[in-house]
Amino acid sequence: MGMVGGGADAFIGAVHRNAAALDQEIELVCGAFSSSPEKSKQTGQALYLDEQRVYDSWQQMIEHESKFPEGERMDFISIVTPNHLHFGPAKMALEHGFHVMSDKPLCFSLDEALELKTLVDKTGLLFGLTHTYSGYPMVKEAKNLIKQGMLGSVRKVYVEYPQGWLTDNIEKGGQKQASWRTDPARSGKSGCMGDIGTHAAHLAEYVSGLSISNVCADLNKIVEGRELDDDGAVLLRFDNGTSGVLVATQIAAGEENNLKLRVYGEKGGLEWNHTDANTLQVKWTDRPNELWRTGVDNQYLSEASRRNTRLPSGHPEGYLEAFANIYRNFAFAIKAVESGEKPDLDIYDYPDINDGVMGMTFIDKVVESTEKKNRWIKM
Amino acid sequence: MGMVGGGADAFIGAVHRNAAALDQEIELVCGAFSSSPEKSKQTGQALYLDEQRVYDSWQQMIEHESKFPEGERMDFISIVTPNHLHFGPAKMALEHGFHVMSDKPLCFSLDEALELKTLVDKTGLLFGLTHTYSGYPMVKEAKNLIKQGMLGSVRKVYVEYPQGWLTDNIEKGGQKQASWRTDPARSGKSGCMGDIGTHAAHLAEYVSGLSISNVCADLNKIVEGRELDDDGAVLLRFDNGTSGVLVATQIAAGEENNLKLRVYGEKGGLEWNHTDANTLQVKWTDRPNELWRTGVDNQYLSEASRRNTRLPSGHPEGYLEAFANIYRNFAFAIKAVESGEKPDLDIYDYPDINDGVMGMTFIDKVVESTEKKNRWIKM
Amino acid sequence: MGMVGGGADAFIGAVHRNAAALDQEIELVCGAFSSSPEKSKQTGQALYLDEQRVYDSWQQMIEHESKFPEGERMDFISIVTPNHLHFGPAKMALEHGFHVMSDKPLCFSLDEALELKTLVDKTGLLFGLTHTYSGYPMVKEAKNLIKQGMLGSVRKVYVEYPQGWLTDNIEKGGQKQASWRTDPARSGKSGCMGDIGTHAAHLAEYVSGLSISNVCADLNKIVEGRELDDDGAVLLRFDNGTSGVLVATQIAAGEENNLKLRVYGEKGGLEWNHTDANTLQVKWTDRPNELWRTGVDNQYLSEASRRNTRLPSGHPEGYLEAFANIYRNFAFAIKAVESGEKPDLDIYDYPDINDGVMGMTFIDKVVESTEKKNRWIKM
Amino acid sequence: MGMVGGGADAFIGAVHRNAAALDQEIELVCGAFSSSPEKSKQTGQALYLDEQRVYDSWQQMIEHESKFPEGERMDFISIVTPNHLHFGPAKMALEHGFHVMSDKPLCFSLDEALELKTLVDKTGLLFGLTHTYSGYPMVKEAKNLIKQGMLGSVRKVYVEYPQGWLTDNIEKGGQKQASWRTDPARSGKSGCMGDIGTHAAHLAEYVSGLSISNVCADLNKIVEGRELDDDGAVLLRFDNGTSGVLVATQIAAGEENNLKLRVYGEKGGLEWNHTDANTLQVKWTDRPNELWRTGVDNQYLSEASRRNTRLPSGHPEGYLEAFANIYRNFAFAIKAVESGEKPDLDIYDYPDINDGVMGMTFIDKVVESTEKKNRWIKM
Repeated sequence: MGMVGGGADAFIGAVHRNAAALDQEIELVCGAFSSSPEKSKQTGQALYLDEQRVYDSWQQMIEHESKFPEGERMDFISIVTPNHLHFGPAKMALEHGFHVMSDKPLCFSLDEALELKTLVDKTGLLFGLTHTYSGYPMVKEAKNLIKQGMLGSVRKVYVEYPQGWLTDNIEKGGQKQASWRTDPARSGKSGCMGDIGTHAAHLAEYVSGLSISNVCADLNKIVEGRELDDDGAVLLRFDNGTSGVLVATQIAAGEENNLKLRVYGEKGGLEWNHTDANTLQVKWTDRPNELWRTGVDNQYLSEASRRNTRLPSGHPEGYLEAFANIYRNFAFAIKAVESGEKPDLDIYDYPDINDGVMGMTFIDKVVESTEKKNRWIKM
Repeated sequence: MGMVGGGADAFIGAVHRNAAALDQEIELVCGAFSSSPEKSKQTGQALYLDEQRVYDSWQQMIEHESKFPEGERMDFISIVTPNHLHFGPAKMALEHGFHVMSDKPLCFSLDEALELKTLVDKTGLLFGLTHTYSGYPMVKEAKNLIKQGMLGSVRKVYVEYPQGWLTDNIEKGGQKQASWRTDPARSGKSGCMGDIGTHAAHLAEYVSGLSISNVCADLNKIVEGRELDDDGAVLLRFDNGTSGVLVATQIAAGEENNLKLRVYGEKGGLEWNHTDANTLQVKWTDRPNELWRTGVDNQYLSEASRRNTRLPSGHPEGYLEAFANIYRNFAFAIKAVESGEKPDLDIYDYPDINDGVMGMTFIDKVVESTEKKNRWIKM
Repeated sequence: MGMVGGGADAFIGAVHRNAAALDQEIELVCGAFSSSPEKSKQTGQALYLDEQRVYDSWQQMIEHESKFPEGERMDFISIVTPNHLHFGPAKMALEHGFHVMSDKPLCFSLDEALELKTLVDKTGLLFGLTHTYSGYPMVKEAKNLIKQGMLGSVRKVYVEYPQGWLTDNIEKGGQKQASWRTDPARSGKSGCMGDIGTHAAHLAEYVSGLSISNVCADLNKIVEGRELDDDGAVLLRFDNGTSGVLVATQIAAGEENNLKLRVYGEKGGLEWNHTDANTLQVKWTDRPNELWRTGVDNQYLSEASRRNTRLPSGHPEGYLEAFANIYRNFAFAIKAVESGEKPDLDIYDYPDINDGVMGMTFIDKVVESTEKKNRWIKM
Repeated sequence: MGMVGGGADAFIGAVHRNAAALDQEIELVCGAFSSSPEKSKQTGQALYLDEQRVYDSWQQMIEHESKFPEGERMDFISIVTPNHLHFGPAKMALEHGFHVMSDKPLCFSLDEALELKTLVDKTGLLFGLTHTYSGYPMVKEAKNLIKQGMLGSVRKVYVEYPQGWLTDNIEKGGQKQASWRTDPARSGKSGCMGDIGTHAAHLAEYVSGLSISNVCADLNKIVEGRELDDDGAVLLRFDNGTSGVLVATQIAAGEENNLKLRVYGEKGGLEWNHTDANTLQVKWTDRPNELWRTGVDNQYLSEASRRNTRLPSGHPEGYLEAFANIYRNFAFAIKAVESGEKPDLDIYDYPDINDGVMGMTFIDKVVESTEKKNRWIKM
């Protein structure tokens, strides 16, 4: 793996590296960690990398690495830059025959997204996207439970993602994460909905097995001086007519990162909270509700969740493990593809280019709906 | 107190009686418990009432009781019938000089509501409404905390009320509670929003201190064969421009009665869940979140919550105690008014005719917004 | 009902009155509320009692009331005084043909307890004891579940009762509840174990269906200047050899009243916490744990819990409702006995004189074990 | 790092490897993964190791590696075998100048423990022990909070460790983890107390800052046919006279791995549960209880917890992260020592040989106390 971005003070770069390292299936072999060659070098050193393979730019990295013989060059690039810097390296990597793992959302605009999608389809290369939450075992269990029909036909989907970290205008003070995320030039059309609303939308589709078909959105810029939405609510329609509600906000003072999904069907319901990520609440109309729990040893769980779990029940797995599942499954898929086999995506799944295009469409449409005073917009 | 409705198999009648009895400030002295004189008699007997004061109809009760001398006759009537039977006894009671306590929503239509409001204003009599949830001590604490400005200016309100008891079409099977609540002729324009959406709307206004000014609603009839909405989501605007989201549903399989309110301000947030009614979560941006707990002995709590609490901390109070607070505070207000004093409504408050008119307006407007394809409607 | 004790500022007197009033099966008709006739009178007035039946002393009350004709006189007395004042009125009431409901622990010493037991057996009168926690529906459900053999044979019992209200030496400051409870002359041999350890012991026996046969205790006086234990741990053996651990403390700073019971059998386990009293966690070795919930409408629950519940699921019942169950069931038993019928104690049970004797024995033996440096003592 | 044990089907070996890999500070360079050279080879291959450094036995590994020049040979060994196989490799590694990280408990007997302690003292080499739970950020926060005196002087310590996985006699069926843990020849004098009681004892000492000085224990063999204790309770005395209770069991049907610690002082208390490992409940007598939460960005937390955290609040860290903290801090200490610096053990601490000796003493004494019918035994 070669990394684009992720210099010393970038939070998400370290997350990607930890996640990739955890299962010892992926080795970081090179990187262009910063637009400053100096910083890139320092990061490479801190990571004990061969200094020959710490590059000044992603362009240089992709070019040089593509000249190495197979087996020696990096297998794929991992893009951990702000949104406006996803498209360039992704495109060039694909054009040079490298698989791509990218942070979310896919890119800066729907146009870019569609161009990448075309390129992926053409090259047959693999494209992964770190919608982390779908990597959690109990999220996979939820998906499986619905797929098996245990809840009956789905009738209602609620997904919410309250955060509080943008309660104050910290971007003014120069907080790095906030600065680019609230900046239209680096983040894209949407702030809150782009950053976390897309996670929520992906989770809703992933678990329910449905596709969002229409949105009616109410995005707000609540904190004074902010140029992009920091809050919003979206009424949803799915392709089978099911209705839903998606709420995302970054100004819910005192909230951490409390993504929560509830799905109700004809026979039962389920609830998953990120704050108690190893529990899946399964709810019934005629008998006690149940607590399904992560654990390789929990025989009542599906293969899908158990194979994405490392530990026995009662040993909590967290965010990095979910993230690591995406990386490991992507690595498995590369291995499979390179041996001419078909990856087993029923169990070792990861978000891909199509999820990325959906996310960019979602951003486009909720912004349009808000501009049109909460009109329903088709996805 | 004289009761209208609440015959043997009516759930809510017994709740009103238990709540009124709990604090020993109110005595049930008479009743017209059923449209069947026979059933009314049986209920009266089971309640150890003087059989002379068990009436065949509410008309008869109001007439007879009004002839008793003051001090002997009932002080107020309590109306616990289905929605379409609130207006009649309420109006007649007011016209005969009796105070009125009514189950919610106020009545069948907005027109009826406005007529009652006029009558209350004219007579100066007291009118209470059992929006139970505002009777909980920690809800009062939440209200107080916001009033004191501890969260700063309010920026966002979420309120949700998921129930699952109408997941199946149980009204077809004749379940009594379901039958009238899903019947337009007895329930009114709305099912779910009338029954529980009004509770949620009241709670949001009560705690935030704001008034809902505009709604954009998406009501659904999800279960086949149902004539009224059994589910819905409403985007809210409050009078100061604050946005909110209200969700209510009766088809969330496996949910009980999980009313939940979250309010976020510039400096902090709060969360109250009916399933853990004695806890108020208070959330901060710069220090640990806190668990404020019901208890007469918790010195950090306001008078408003402590005077609506009977027990020391760690002794859970429940639904009946919240309900009893409304009855007791109503009794205190009657006592005060009848002694020519001013009731202390800062501490011993209860929902009144204005809350009732708001609820009926809410029903009207969310139905209108849905009919107009989720257009924003002014309240 | 006639009440002994429970003057204006006595916490537990009001609890008894609220609990007795809730279901409208019991009427408070007389009382000797204080050793000060003046205070007794004031309390009687505040309670709207006939002043002829507000007595100067319990002796006077029992004597006078016993002269009233049946049907007019009180049916039973309710004793809500400190421990050293239980025995006198209880004995005299029994001797005058009145049933007795008493606050716990039964009395001041094991000798007194045995004398009362003899008297109850001789007179055939009913004797109730307010071990409140056995009045909770989910505690009854737990008992039933074990009785039905659903957990298999019981192997382990944990019960704990942490409180924090005696963290400081508040008795020095004259706090009324603390003063008598920490005073050997009014409380008895034990402080913490007498006050709350007996609740824990009763709960353990009630739910498990087993009897404590041996104890090995470690009682402590932690707060300086305290004369009675304010903390303790007891290793338990039950009659069938099962082991257990009982912990009770009043110096756990920041704890409220968090009684908790866990029982494990060969096939599963259960957990009940007073802080979430309407949930019973049922645990399995081979499938997801379950949340059993209070509710008259929850068809999977036993008669025993549903008949001690007033509300549908999701409408929390609390401490007063549990207390009220004991009073109501006691009233049912009196009614039955007085009509020559057998009370249905499988469903409408209440703690009785035998539970009281057990509690006093428990106190005696844990104190003895501590004095003997944690030797095992037979109950 | 070179690993002893941890062949393909050993649960804990993979945990150690994942934990060591996570932060990219430690590289697995060699191993003797099994007593079967064939299996060792297979494991090495699966781990992409240089086959020259996959050894047939730990003796061979230590010998060969010690011949490599510094900088090339392994820095330390990691021992992940059953208890009876800790001493041999630990001793030989120390004698050959290698640091040692070992799974817990330290070894098979107190004699072995004391011999290792002598050797560590003599060589000055580092010895780490994976008492995982002290690696959790909120456990470190708890320790710090008490050290800062925020709770006042400690008065009471409760620690409990209920598991349910040995509810059935699964060792008979050959379950690998159960087989050696319930076998006196491989596990040592104690089953449950050795396996998890030592974790609980370590946690209690680690957080409270006190040392256990006396124990009064009640160990049980509950499941038929089991040769070692599978359950037990221990009354504790700490060096300053504080009392405590330690409970550990492996037959609590339906429990996972619910280690829980509560400590109460004169001014407040704290509670940490492994099932909600990122929350520390801090409890007060005079103000609301608080939820302190893991997060590098939570400024109210101490350095000690923040430097052992990788993610911002709301991104749960789990068991592997806690485990990784021990490995990473051990690596930091090695780096420091090898550069002639002093490791910063206030922040980057890890359990060491002294904790290991304490654990082995604890095992010895609780077994002795049980044999002597729960007599108090000095540690």
